[in-house]
Amino acid sequence: MQQLKDRIVSEGRVLPGNIVKIDGFLNHRVDMALMKDMAYEFERLFDISDITAVLTVEASGIPVAAMCAAEWKVPLLFAKKAKSDNIEGGLYKSDIYSYTYRKNVTLLMSAQWLSSDDRVLIVDDFLANGEALRGLVDIVNQAGAELIGIGIAVEKGFQPGGQMMRDAGHNLISLAIIDKLEENNITFRE
Amino acid sequence: MQQLKDRIVSEGRVLPGNIVKIDGFLNHRVDMALMKDMAYEFERLFDISDITAVLTVEASGIPVAAMCAAEWKVPLLFAKKAKSDNIEGGLYKSDIYSYTYRKNVTLLMSAQWLSSDDRVLIVDDFLANGEALRGLVDIVNQAGAELIGIGIAVEKGFQPGGQMMRDAGHNLISLAIIDKLEENNITFRE
Repeated sequence: MQQLKDRIVSEGRVLPGNIVKIDGFLNHRVDMALMKDMAYEFERLFDISDITAVLTVEASGIPVAAMCAAEWKVPLLFAKKAKSDNIEGGLYKSDIYSYTYRKNVTLLMSAQWLSSDDRVLIVDDFLANGEALRGLVDIVNQAGAELIGIGIAVEKGFQPGGQMMRDAGHNLISLAIIDKLEENNITFRE
Repeated sequence: MQQLKDRIVSEGRVLPGNIVKIDGFLNHRVDMALMKDMAYEFERLFDISDITAVLTVEASGIPVAAMCAAEWKVPLLFAKKAKSDNIEGGLYKSDIYSYTYRKNVTLLMSAQWLSSDDRVLIVDDFLANGEALRGLVDIVNQAGAELIGIGIAVEKGFQPGGQMMRDAGHNLISLAIIDKLEENNITFRE
């Protein structure tokens, strides 16, 4: 998606540790017009005609997933991280390792809101090691729901998550795949 | 907002500990059409003509705040909880107590994205003890930004957060204020 790549190039900052900071429009201050355009792009790229829900994980996946759900008139589901008092029994759980927080976290989804009747598109803002995504796919499988596809805004192509998901046969599409991060140069996959 | 009150009555479940679970449409599975209607309602209730951003905190405030930002064509800002590697220096920080997680958490906002030029509306899904809100107001003050108002979806009127904010002179409006929670009866403030 050219608009997204242009924003990454013009506003992104490459930091040590293969980090590209694009928190000015994607995941801290969020440009909702861009989120809406990404929803349109996912709609063009996936067959969303009979999906029943958009699934993401808190927190930074929510803005883009929310716009998808709003545009497609289906519920937004977001998995929670770790245990809070306000979610009782009847949970799907999946343990993942968070590279961002450098600890294990458990993704939680109330079994009440996802079942074998559902056909879901997973949407998230970033894909790197794929741990969050692995947890979301695990939850979809636990529910016996059908996974229509996985839509990602920005994939770091030099980290293993994308390859892992594609090797597993998932219909994963990323709107921008970064293959190389250098201080003054960001290389996208064609 | 009658639509919201009707949804709370028809779909909410009252649990021990003064908890009302409305996670089927507000904060786990989210009805984005309702979020959009809430954005319209906030637009009617606040003068949003010259705001520069909508501010919320991760995670469950994001869907409604995102719809507000999308409708009003301003950026969505969401404060983060605790330290992640991907936010470096230049931060506003505010320590709050999370009753949900029963521990202290620090709200973080990059100083880059909020300044004295900003006029913000804070939007959140729930108000009970007001700790998250206190942290957000603190961050707005640290930035020297102007706080236009605070829009809340559901306020628990029998907990102190709302009174605290109104006593402090903030223009706080909640779309539904629950004054009493009983197993088969939810009493709203007129």
